[in-house]
Amino acid sequence: MPTTKLTIPAFWQAGSIEDVQHGRETIARKLCGCFNELCGIGSDGRDGYTRLAWTREDARLRLWFATMALDRGMTVTVDAAGNQWAWRGVPTPDNPGVAAGSHLDSVVHGGAFDGPLGVISAFLAVDELAARHGADGVPVGVANFSNEEGSRFHAACFGSRVLTGVIKPDDALAREEDGSTLAETFASFDAILREEMADQLPSRKAALFAGAHAPRTETYGTDEALLRSIASFVELHVDLGVHVDRAHVPVAVQAGIWPHGRWHVAIDGQSNHAGTTPFDFRRDALVAFSKVCLKVEETARELGMLATIGRVAVKPNGINVIASHVDTYIDARAETDEVLNEFVKRMGTYVRHASTQGPCRVKLNRMTRTPDSHFDAHVCGTICEAASDELDVPVRPFSMGAGHDAGILSDWGVPAGMIIVRNDTGVAHSRFEHATLADCADGVLALAASLDALAAEVSEQRESA
Amino acid sequence: MPTTKLTIPAFWQAGSIEDVQHGRETIARKLCGCFNELCGIGSDGRDGYTRLAWTREDARLRLWFATMALDRGMTVTVDAAGNQWAWRGVPTPDNPGVAAGSHLDSVVHGGAFDGPLGVISAFLAVDELAARHGADGVPVGVANFSNEEGSRFHAACFGSRVLTGVIKPDDALAREEDGSTLAETFASFDAILREEMADQLPSRKAALFAGAHAPRTETYGTDEALLRSIASFVELHVDLGVHVDRAHVPVAVQAGIWPHGRWHVAIDGQSNHAGTTPFDFRRDALVAFSKVCLKVEETARELGMLATIGRVAVKPNGINVIASHVDTYIDARAETDEVLNEFVKRMGTYVRHASTQGPCRVKLNRMTRTPDSHFDAHVCGTICEAASDELDVPVRPFSMGAGHDAGILSDWGVPAGMIIVRNDTGVAHSRFEHATLADCADGVLALAASLDALAAEVSEQRESA
Repeated sequence: MPTTKLTIPAFWQAGSIEDVQHGRETIARKLCGCFNELCGIGSDGRDGYTRLAWTREDARLRLWFATMALDRGMTVTVDAAGNQWAWRGVPTPDNPGVAAGSHLDSVVHGGAFDGPLGVISAFLAVDELAARHGADGVPVGVANFSNEEGSRFHAACFGSRVLTGVIKPDDALAREEDGSTLAETFASFDAILREEMADQLPSRKAALFAGAHAPRTETYGTDEALLRSIASFVELHVDLGVHVDRAHVPVAVQAGIWPHGRWHVAIDGQSNHAGTTPFDFRRDALVAFSKVCLKVEETARELGMLATIGRVAVKPNGINVIASHVDTYIDARAETDEVLNEFVKRMGTYVRHASTQGPCRVKLNRMTRTPDSHFDAHVCGTICEAASDELDVPVRPFSMGAGHDAGILSDWGVPAGMIIVRNDTGVAHSRFEHATLADCADGVLALAASLDALAAEVSEQRESA
Repeated sequence: MPTTKLTIPAFWQAGSIEDVQHGRETIARKLCGCFNELCGIGSDGRDGYTRLAWTREDARLRLWFATMALDRGMTVTVDAAGNQWAWRGVPTPDNPGVAAGSHLDSVVHGGAFDGPLGVISAFLAVDELAARHGADGVPVGVANFSNEEGSRFHAACFGSRVLTGVIKPDDALAREEDGSTLAETFASFDAILREEMADQLPSRKAALFAGAHAPRTETYGTDEALLRSIASFVELHVDLGVHVDRAHVPVAVQAGIWPHGRWHVAIDGQSNHAGTTPFDFRRDALVAFSKVCLKVEETARELGMLATIGRVAVKPNGINVIASHVDTYIDARAETDEVLNEFVKRMGTYVRHASTQGPCRVKLNRMTRTPDSHFDAHVCGTICEAASDELDVPVRPFSMGAGHDAGILSDWGVPAGMIIVRNDTGVAHSRFEHATLADCADGVLALAASLDALAAEVSEQRESA
């Protein structure tokens, strides 16, 4: 065990290492080391982290990923959709591998764990497999999916959706944000990446660039050969709610993802002077917005599901000017497709009524919609068994409201499952998001054991074929 | 009469000049010329104009003002609060002058008339007085008040409020916006101004700079000698509602301003994942905001007054993140102080109830509060009589909801009044704001006649003294 002084990231207590089970200290030290490396990227101080896709922060994150891979002697590449992959061995459709991973991007003012914990754990699981001489002969991969949070260009799981063909490349490249298309953003990203690599040796620079660059617009899109080269995929992720905490275990398996989607709401009123315009002459877009916002919660509560408005843009946004236009978004999730459809139907009815009876025009447009999805039952079973054995606690399956890249891969047909690490605050997408060092170390072991078991199945299938 | 081809600004019909009464064609042509000069500054195309104080647009507007003054042989200066003054003659407390003016800044995506019409009309009224040999021996001034809309640094009538000591200089200079204090903004403004003057001859440059620069921070504040040098002040302004239009006259006199103010509302919730957080665990700042927004309208309607929320800032403003914080503002105006006080009392009760009973903390803080104010009855009477005689229509007094710089000067003790020009759309703070060319020409004549009559009173008083 290394004797160098351990620096524990600020989000863990100084004595956290004492709570880690015997035999897991090395993993815990490595977790601290990796999080320390990431802490300086996109930190907002007391406001958490802002690490948006295709920004300078993302360039640093992607270089960190490529460095982690190269330091382990892994091959690092960028797929046609811009996601990063590190491989030990060369997976092909005829010699498929097992892979793990998650994402490194965050929402604005997000937490430390949502995303990075899965990527770090995947690398440390690869180390653990190497130490155990596990997954022998089966390629093992680590993925960093791009723009998972969808904080940019208006769709979550952006990279995995482009990879699996759910988002069409032409549609994606033409999307605009802050006056730039995605295509233009890719071009400027590579320039930022080169700046960030300025201090590297030329040979290292080439390897890092090959594993971190933006996708080429001319080949941007799906990569079915890559998807068929993955025998099974496991995403480890911090719990975004209180599912695992309520079960009093360090980890659980996510067996399914609620159907969910995003809708854009555009409200057109008319700007006018706040001090002179009588109420009956007003077409106040913010008053119309407020009614929509309360209707969303009311409807979702009635239907026993979740729906949220979190983002608003107001024009002209002046203190003494009646708002002329509001753009806003509904994020909605339900246990069944039927309930989600009923929500959309009721909101559609409300919006039509508001437009015809009220002073503002309100339009509701679907942006994304993901149906009810279940992870591969066999993979989930293997993970539950391997993790239960490894940790000596019962690791059970749950269905949850959050969508993840593993769900997108699963929908395409990659056998996939998820390990969810307990979040002891139950808060997510905020600096209060938290998993203990001991639980994170357990997560790495659960992931390593799962990949080992899944690799063993691949080996068996290959031998029996 | 000039025979050069007339270019009519886009907001007036091509044939507008035909509707102008006989004998007012020269004024109408000058109005077109002045608006044409301003049209290129801060134009947002189909979204109107954005001309915020202490920006490059403002530098161009202030240079235009200084040019208008110098071209007329007027002296142009900047007062201690950063407002521009052009004078024919030298006013002193012992030899006071009459003055007119308004402001050149706008809200975001504002209209063409709110502000500039009053400044242009003041210069054209000075021309008209010169042509009539009016106001003989009495100094005549034109003012451009800075940051009237308060689109910057959070207070309307900023320049006149600093000039009259309502806003304290230390408080003003320390205010921050977009990461810069007002003091820093002044420093960068002078640099912009110098860039914009690069093509001017050195002697002209000095005169323009003296009449357009930002105030010096060390002397920033009131100028009582200047205020005591103004025997009477008339602000001409486009109607911000339908007061004048309903009276079927081109102009009216504003006799009073409703008491009004601005309140800041800060809502603290907690950010969390939209897909996993049950409603009963949520502290959603946007849901709390929506209730406040509807409560504001409901309360104002009950009390027969006006109140508006037009500006909102949401954190972290992510599609799949529950909002943790909302900053918003209430603009409220009522016919009497009692009604406005009752509104504030009811909102205070609501906010305390929301904070104790609801999941979010809501705070209400007063930013500005202007009591019931009446313009000088004698000045209003003089304007009504002079304008009625000049235009041969009945020009009557009204009390209105909008605050103006003339109201701030009046509250300090400057005898002041306002001429309001008919707005034929009734819309303000938007590109739909409109006054016809014929009504604007009538406005100039009404203003010239009013200044002439007020100057005659000054002469008489001086002679009888």
